Amino acid sequence: MDKEKPLILVTNDDGITAPGIRALIEVMKELGDVIVVAPDSPQSGMGHAITISDTLFCEPVTIKENYKHKEFSCSGTPADCVKIATQEILHRKPDLCVSGINHGSNSSINVIYSGTMSAAVEAGIEGIPAIGFSLLDYSLTADFEPSKKFVKAITRKVLKQGLPKGVVLNVNLPKLQSSEIKGIKVCRQANAHWEEEFDKRTNPQGRDYYWLSGRFVNKDKGEDTDEWALANGFVSVVPVQFDLTAHHFMDDLNNWELND
Amino acid sequence: MDKEKPLILVTNDDGITAPGIRALIEVMKELGDVIVVAPDSPQSGMGHAITISDTLFCEPVTIKENYKHKEFSCSGTPADCVKIATQEILHRKPDLCVSGINHGSNSSINVIYSGTMSAAVEAGIEGIPAIGFSLLDYSLTADFEPSKKFVKAITRKVLKQGLPKGVVLNVNLPKLQSSEIKGIKVCRQANAHWEEEFDKRTNPQGRDYYWLSGRFVNKDKGEDTDEWALANGFVSVVPVQFDLTAHHFMDDLNNWELND
Repeated sequence: MDKEKPLILVTNDDGITAPGIRALIEVMKELGDVIVVAPDSPQSGMGHAITISDTLFCEPVTIKENYKHKEFSCSGTPADCVKIATQEILHRKPDLCVSGINHGSNSSINVIYSGTMSAAVEAGIEGIPAIGFSLLDYSLTADFEPSKKFVKAITRKVLKQGLPKGVVLNVNLPKLQSSEIKGIKVCRQANAHWEEEFDKRTNPQGRDYYWLSGRFVNKDKGEDTDEWALANGFVSVVPVQFDLTAHHFMDDLNNWELND
Repeated sequence: MDKEKPLILVTNDDGITAPGIRALIEVMKELGDVIVVAPDSPQSGMGHAITISDTLFCEPVTIKENYKHKEFSCSGTPADCVKIATQEILHRKPDLCVSGINHGSNSSINVIYSGTMSAAVEAGIEGIPAIGFSLLDYSLTADFEPSKKFVKAITRKVLKQGLPKGVVLNVNLPKLQSSEIKGIKVCRQANAHWEEEFDKRTNPQGRDYYWLSGRFVNKDKGEDTDEWALANGFVSVVPVQFDLTAHHFMDDLNNWELND
């Protein structure tokens, strides 16, 4: 590979054949040398799962004829893909890891459940600058064209500036035409959540089972949030950390005198 | 149920029959009315996975004869268990959710991969005070007796004081005898990580596969970390938040002028 070009690891959680990762690969090929290690099947909602009680397969695949031997299909989770890419395929850290473009939002609390973001976070833990990209359109026929210029602009900045240790980016893109997108906005994660609903059914053997569904509830009206930005036509960029310590509560907790 | 007693939801990621959850149930029965909704099989390393592409089963089980109709076995992840418990079984929020006692550490970066902590975080997202407990002993025959008094003391404080919105507790217990444990220490998450190693093998059909393993590396020598506390004979308590925004990097990121 050309030593002047950055080495970019591309992964996702919708699986290696998803249109979203194809769009991301196209953009990344303009910016560096690309290697793809992605799940062989959809992994949405996998959070930061890793495969520790089962075997992993990871093999070269050819999705496009003109791009062979640089794509690997992995039986594991998005986080597994990043681990196996650096250890077994590249034998070194890539210069950047990008994940997505996810078919569907990973804004606000969705970052917690997101396989897309777990890949970016895993890369971050390993000290690799990383970005997760998600388009607010769940459809398999989603139009990724309007996203591309923003994906490219943000990636370029990260390649140039780097990211501080312990921080990755969570980028969400509104489902709008290029001309309708107002720009890029740095945001905080909105304080929103899902109100679960379970659809209870009975199988042919008479056993009850459930489908998880739910309703997204955002009571955070802050104009500095990702939800606000997306609802108002902006691309949202949230810097995400994986030191989960609630530092603001340490003093109070110390005052609890847990040893009394 | 007695209205004066708090309603405590107990779950875990090692599965409903694991000795760790049995020990936790015993302690919680002394503090309130207990309901158990836990995975039907081990879910370690599941992170914050949720089941959105498959059906869920959740049925009453009797693990101990003197304790029937209050335990439910669920085919899903720890986060699923919390969701289904509040929505379909309790039809209300419990007063507390405890998860564990995990067979093995969930200190430092392990919080990210932890099914035990994902249940606690899910409860926290739903506004339920929550604690994850883990013992630094992976063995199925681990001795949970020395942990019990610390589990009880911390739970009592949380029942009394509550927890601020957006914060849950990650409690890890050293593998020591009662007399050797020095006390409880409030800590920050150590900045540690895993260096992956993949054990590559070939199956009888000639196809290569991998087992994920790794080596835990802690370069964070801070005496205010959970790793330090555990190595020095303390029970560690880390307050954990699920607003992942890296607030300290917002200003810098704004200076990148992403729209130029």
